[in-house]
Amino acid sequence: MDKVREGEYIILWGGPDANFITKYKPGKPIHSHRGVFNLPENLEWGDILVSSKGRKFYVIKPSNADFVLRLKRKTNIFYPKDMGIVLLYTDFKPHSKVIEAGSGSGAMAVILSNLLVRPGRLFSYDNNPTHQRVAKENVQNFGKPENVIFRLRDVYVCGFIERDVDIVIVDLPEPWRVVKHAYKSLKYGGFLVFASPNIEQVKETRKCMYETGFVAMRTVEVLMRDWQIRDVGCRPEHEMRGHTLFYSFGRKAKHP
Amino acid sequence: MDKVREGEYIILWGGPDANFITKYKPGKPIHSHRGVFNLPENLEWGDILVSSKGRKFYVIKPSNADFVLRLKRKTNIFYPKDMGIVLLYTDFKPHSKVIEAGSGSGAMAVILSNLLVRPGRLFSYDNNPTHQRVAKENVQNFGKPENVIFRLRDVYVCGFIERDVDIVIVDLPEPWRVVKHAYKSLKYGGFLVFASPNIEQVKETRKCMYETGFVAMRTVEVLMRDWQIRDVGCRPEHEMRGHTLFYSFGRKAKHP
Amino acid sequence: MDKVREGEYIILWGGPDANFITKYKPGKPIHSHRGVFNLPENLEWGDILVSSKGRKFYVIKPSNADFVLRLKRKTNIFYPKDMGIVLLYTDFKPHSKVIEAGSGSGAMAVILSNLLVRPGRLFSYDNNPTHQRVAKENVQNFGKPENVIFRLRDVYVCGFIERDVDIVIVDLPEPWRVVKHAYKSLKYGGFLVFASPNIEQVKETRKCMYETGFVAMRTVEVLMRDWQIRDVGCRPEHEMRGHTLFYSFGRKAKHP
Amino acid sequence: MDKVREGEYIILWGGPDANFITKYKPGKPIHSHRGVFNLPENLEWGDILVSSKGRKFYVIKPSNADFVLRLKRKTNIFYPKDMGIVLLYTDFKPHSKVIEAGSGSGAMAVILSNLLVRPGRLFSYDNNPTHQRVAKENVQNFGKPENVIFRLRDVYVCGFIERDVDIVIVDLPEPWRVVKHAYKSLKYGGFLVFASPNIEQVKETRKCMYETGFVAMRTVEVLMRDWQIRDVGCRPEHEMRGHTLFYSFGRKAKHP
Repeated sequence: MDKVREGEYIILWGGPDANFITKYKPGKPIHSHRGVFNLPENLEWGDILVSSKGRKFYVIKPSNADFVLRLKRKTNIFYPKDMGIVLLYTDFKPHSKVIEAGSGSGAMAVILSNLLVRPGRLFSYDNNPTHQRVAKENVQNFGKPENVIFRLRDVYVCGFIERDVDIVIVDLPEPWRVVKHAYKSLKYGGFLVFASPNIEQVKETRKCMYETGFVAMRTVEVLMRDWQIRDVGCRPEHEMRGHTLFYSFGRKAKHP
Repeated sequence: MDKVREGEYIILWGGPDANFITKYKPGKPIHSHRGVFNLPENLEWGDILVSSKGRKFYVIKPSNADFVLRLKRKTNIFYPKDMGIVLLYTDFKPHSKVIEAGSGSGAMAVILSNLLVRPGRLFSYDNNPTHQRVAKENVQNFGKPENVIFRLRDVYVCGFIERDVDIVIVDLPEPWRVVKHAYKSLKYGGFLVFASPNIEQVKETRKCMYETGFVAMRTVEVLMRDWQIRDVGCRPEHEMRGHTLFYSFGRKAKHP
Repeated sequence: MDKVREGEYIILWGGPDANFITKYKPGKPIHSHRGVFNLPENLEWGDILVSSKGRKFYVIKPSNADFVLRLKRKTNIFYPKDMGIVLLYTDFKPHSKVIEAGSGSGAMAVILSNLLVRPGRLFSYDNNPTHQRVAKENVQNFGKPENVIFRLRDVYVCGFIERDVDIVIVDLPEPWRVVKHAYKSLKYGGFLVFASPNIEQVKETRKCMYETGFVAMRTVEVLMRDWQIRDVGCRPEHEMRGHTLFYSFGRKAKHP
Repeated sequence: MDKVREGEYIILWGGPDANFITKYKPGKPIHSHRGVFNLPENLEWGDILVSSKGRKFYVIKPSNADFVLRLKRKTNIFYPKDMGIVLLYTDFKPHSKVIEAGSGSGAMAVILSNLLVRPGRLFSYDNNPTHQRVAKENVQNFGKPENVIFRLRDVYVCGFIERDVDIVIVDLPEPWRVVKHAYKSLKYGGFLVFASPNIEQVKETRKCMYETGFVAMRTVEVLMRDWQIRDVGCRPEHEMRGHTLFYSFGRKAKHP
């Protein structure tokens, strides 16, 4: 059915520069620079709402990227373009057992929790209670909290509790400090991924991974460019993100 | 446990320029430019095998991208960097109902079938029996065939059978010819994605989408660059793919 | 000698976010968010001036790019990264005879006039007296006005006066309208370059060039990314220009 | 006039995949996979020659980039896209006094010698007699040898002879070893440019420049992508160079 259920997230799309994500509640007032309106009873997907200024707003489904980009944030964020690479360059599956460190703003946890199905599970570690609280809230709001176990813990010092996990994803300033911990927690053949802004972090961590017994390492960067497609002419957008993070991958092997 | 089961796919990793994907069978002979060897009984993940030339090969898990890049091919192929974008810029979930046209070499079907869980399902359409046979084989080998229903059909003319699907993914030379069919098959709010090499196809199809009732359209291109990370110096790889496909997204809305 | 002559342009460099271009005049007051100071008598290149807030400003030479990026502007501007391509993908030499249409803000005229030596000459056409006045001022200020002849003229309708020129550079909204004019003005073998933001303009103009008798056509786009190089870590800058203009090149041949 | 003079370089352009640079000599035989033909007497620019296989070849002028890309090579080469950046991000002028180290294959020397006019001068240093001989030959063939003085010398140890130069361009494996020498040779305010494939070289050299008294430093990388422009569809080329060299710039200031 096409009914929007109360509590579901909707995008109100009034144009590229006027779109909002919000939880549906009948009667809820919406305020925007393009006028105000109330969400009606019996809202349906695809409905067209008209604001006090006569502007149309379409009721559409949020994409996974929409959730990520609208998270409440305390820290840097994973970018959708990069999260896609993590899914494809590991063996991620709905039943995977995944560790992430740190929780960040919960962007990765939101996406992975939505793609996991029990017994698949994400274990999300962070040292900072404030960050983890935000991440938890974001997963509550946008993800599947039943698929995520949050752990407050200094993983540099204490490492991870789980064993035989499929994938460890690291987004910490000193990723080399968890390489040995990740090795202990991973299945043989399993994937360690880490995200770093600087080349020095990549080099140091890959060196440490090599010494610890990881193989098949690879480091990539991903650039995404939007295009303007118009009757009067098509061209790339002038604005573009020049850099987010380098992503590096390796797999646990036995010691020679 | 760490045992490789007979019939499971393994990567034999002997270095960046010497790695193979193969199905595990005890006793199976492996021939490479780095020497020959047989797969042993009781192979375990992470094992190290030594070839006749004394070279080490590590037994590691294939990534999702590994499957894609090693498919038997009859047609162009989706690139992992681009498939990640499709997952993130739609609302793809394990229980999604997805249509793809055409089947191509089955790259998208392999990945999606592995990420779907019943009642999630992929309906893969193609007009060309040879292509679809290859796609089927690839899904048999690398994906979850139980999650894919292949349909041999000229979708330009006949459209799609399913209704209320979440996502339609189009990789055809004339995507504008299935826009109306996709509109009929999609849920309100649902996603139409199409992949095209040329800007003219993007323009024509987006125009048609606009007239048909799709909103929130977006077109992107994704560039991925590998890095050499070495003790003696870090730098981007000289080789890089300059272009694969433009990806465009839109969502079904009601008619104004 | 290291003396700065009165009237010469200097960069006062106080850091990446605090640098100015100005004409040297002894006693001239300089106001900045990092404090005020006066330019001294007998200023020398490389001198260090200290502001009222104790910040250091270095006296250095402007680069060609500095001139371009600090021009007074009425129109879009050529980017240094793209102007370099124009110099290299034509046969530009100090003695070249070059036409440009339109004058724009004079960015190209500033650079070319500085690289030309008599009998080399630039003929700069524009239809808009206001734009051309700005271009002229910029060349007066930053270029070699003796190497540029400005012509106020509607080149779509009237074409160019000169014959046997080496290079014609077009930066107009409808470049296809000057292709035949450019053909008439160029030497055989000579270069037509045009800069366009949209792909449609490129396609239309190249088609027209092909029919008019140009060969060896090529279209490129250039991306430039800055890097942060710091003790604590090296990474690409987050900010980057996603698109400026497509540059297309062709050479005049005889008619088959 | 449109006559090609004996000894002048011409491009014989028979299509994107069939074009050659050669010195004009009447009667000279040309062999290609598209047939053979002889260069006629009284060749003119723009002429169309027809091969034994009936294929047309156009006689056009080489661009500066054509010269660079067709040099005889013993070493890595500067890319036209990067050489453009060097011209724009320094204060290069026809009368500049420039040092380069090393001579490489002479690519930079060819371009700069063609853009210099006396008293402008390039001093090209190399330690390797074989490389420098190739560079000299290339300048003899494609550049203006009267504007280049080659010096065979170990610049790491011995530095440069000239003083008060405007620009020093370094393309050596250990650029940091010539930073102090470059400082000595440059005018105050003058430019040091170095080209390095690896980030470590950039970091080390910039650190050394900072300590030596250079300011206003900047490091960039340039990507160039070709486009296919066809009636049936426009798209970026699949092939693209992912990396050539990082280019770094700084200017000599006085010591604080």
